[in-house]
Amino acid sequence: MEYRKIKGDDDEDDHDAASDLESLKGKSHTVASSNIALATLGGERTNWKRKGVVTCALTILTSSQAILIVWSKRAGKYEYSVTTANFLVETLKCALSLLALTRIWKNDGVTDDNRLSTTYDEVKVFPIPAALYLFKNLLQYYIFAYVDAPGYQILKNLNIISTGVLYRIILKKKLSEIQWAGFILLCCGCTTAQLNSNSDRVLQTSLPGWIMAIIMALLSGFAGVYTEAIIKKRPSRNINVQNFWLYVFGMAFNAVAIVIQDFDAVTNKGFFHGYSFITVVMILNHALSGIAVSMVMKYADNIVKVYSTSVAMLLTAVVSVFLFNFHLSLAFFLGSTVVSVSVYLHSAGKLR
Amino acid sequence: MEYRKIKGDDDEDDHDAASDLESLKGKSHTVASSNIALATLGGERTNWKRKGVVTCALTILTSSQAILIVWSKRAGKYEYSVTTANFLVETLKCALSLLALTRIWKNDGVTDDNRLSTTYDEVKVFPIPAALYLFKNLLQYYIFAYVDAPGYQILKNLNIISTGVLYRIILKKKLSEIQWAGFILLCCGCTTAQLNSNSDRVLQTSLPGWIMAIIMALLSGFAGVYTEAIIKKRPSRNINVQNFWLYVFGMAFNAVAIVIQDFDAVTNKGFFHGYSFITVVMILNHALSGIAVSMVMKYADNIVKVYSTSVAMLLTAVVSVFLFNFHLSLAFFLGSTVVSVSVYLHSAGKLR
Repeated sequence: MEYRKIKGDDDEDDHDAASDLESLKGKSHTVASSNIALATLGGERTNWKRKGVVTCALTILTSSQAILIVWSKRAGKYEYSVTTANFLVETLKCALSLLALTRIWKNDGVTDDNRLSTTYDEVKVFPIPAALYLFKNLLQYYIFAYVDAPGYQILKNLNIISTGVLYRIILKKKLSEIQWAGFILLCCGCTTAQLNSNSDRVLQTSLPGWIMAIIMALLSGFAGVYTEAIIKKRPSRNINVQNFWLYVFGMAFNAVAIVIQDFDAVTNKGFFHGYSFITVVMILNHALSGIAVSMVMKYADNIVKVYSTSVAMLLTAVVSVFLFNFHLSLAFFLGSTVVSVSVYLHSAGKLR
Repeated sequence: MEYRKIKGDDDEDDHDAASDLESLKGKSHTVASSNIALATLGGERTNWKRKGVVTCALTILTSSQAILIVWSKRAGKYEYSVTTANFLVETLKCALSLLALTRIWKNDGVTDDNRLSTTYDEVKVFPIPAALYLFKNLLQYYIFAYVDAPGYQILKNLNIISTGVLYRIILKKKLSEIQWAGFILLCCGCTTAQLNSNSDRVLQTSLPGWIMAIIMALLSGFAGVYTEAIIKKRPSRNINVQNFWLYVFGMAFNAVAIVIQDFDAVTNKGFFHGYSFITVVMILNHALSGIAVSMVMKYADNIVKVYSTSVAMLLTAVVSVFLFNFHLSLAFFLGSTVVSVSVYLHSAGKLR
């Protein structure tokens, strides 16, 4: 789009060049290449801006997510069925994508890139991430037989490494050695920041516990990387259409989860039992975060997503100092410094 | 030395070149530059080897030092006067330097570079590091009014940062941004590896405690950097002569320390009261470590010294698992990983 627009402004030059093609071949070439350079520059700047906006949105939404969870626990309201809330999150995301699409159709008209109708070839891969997430969430209930909740929080940092490895293998994108160093540090820094006096218990995790934690990290990493692969496969396809289809299958799989896990509670106490104002705010926040994740996948990548959510984790702790009188540990300061250096290394280590 | 030797082998070429200077100017130039290239290559290889040997020696000696301290504490033998032991360490280092010198004089004869006699201009700076260390050791008694011993162990990691900063300012040597990132990580990683359930108390350190800790870190860093400056000022001067003069002043200042701190104990109970076999082993180890530090200053630098002693700290913990049934914490694993990445970054980030 940017390219066409800037090229349009220079139409006159193009005409001149065409009218005296032989003598001006040199000039025409210069003009064309300067057009492309300008277009690339403009396009890159827009890309960077868009990338920055979606990354910031994801960071802010993720950190407020964690704060809302603490808040809802403080308020003692956590008796609703999580599966129904997840279903509503998917539904809301679906509705928001449709809303965005109707606006786009009104402004630009329906094109091949933004029409909702799809082919089997395009849609067949969309259920896979939703299925992977469902499978991972079900496993989550079993891992607690081997690891306690704080231990699981620590083991979840394995997601960082699994995402990096699968990003390299599946998307075949290269990270420089410095960036890999940064990625290992990100994992160490996040874990360090979460250390407390009970953390050492995680070292006593049994072999089946470790295996499950690694499988869950791989499932989560694979779901993320696979979503990026689906979204990036058709770069010109409108992200709202891609989201719509992702979320439709999200709704379907979460409906299955309601039946498996909360059928009795929902039929006896009703779909919305235990909902409160804060539950609604959390659902809204999760829906927006979910859309931000998709946007980051489209305009940036899984690595940016991991950095963004990790920085969000640190931001949450800092904000909690003011909101909940939270005390920051020495481990938190050390971990945060390591994460900050890691963010620097990711940008300093860019492959040219 | 290497340069002269390799140049010697090619004497014939040099003669040819000189005999027909005009016509062979090109050749002469090629020969000379290839000589220099060979010499540089040979010299660099020897430098690297020597650097490697002294660094490994320092690492092994430092880690065995910490193990000896644990061992001596376990054996419950720590009743000797530390100042007398320090004095003996300096004396032993002095004696070893003289021993090395007598061998060199026998093999190479006495030259300007290895003669013991010195000028006021050369010798006037040698007391400074010894004085700084004495001042720092005296301060150490006062800081415990503000910080407990484990807290002091953690604050000592500030030495890493102070050494880096003073190395940059005083020796005017540049580190790349990646190497600075590595240095910050080294400090964070070492501190993380030492974390335990009481570490958070260090955050409650009062302002005077922080100021003293920073002053001590600066004194320690300054003493190290200044020693490097003295030793490197005369690169051709034999290291054993430089060490001899450093250690002579070390003996003098430690004699002062005996008078200030342990005069009563020494006059009443004798100079060697409380000495045991392990005390002797520790003195021997400290003397060899001290010489290794000087060698690292001569052939490498303070940065290598800091990395070497930090890695030694980690090695000590690993060896302690086998020797003392020590348990490694999750924080130790995280810290060690961060230190390892930091070592990698220091070498990957070398300025070209």
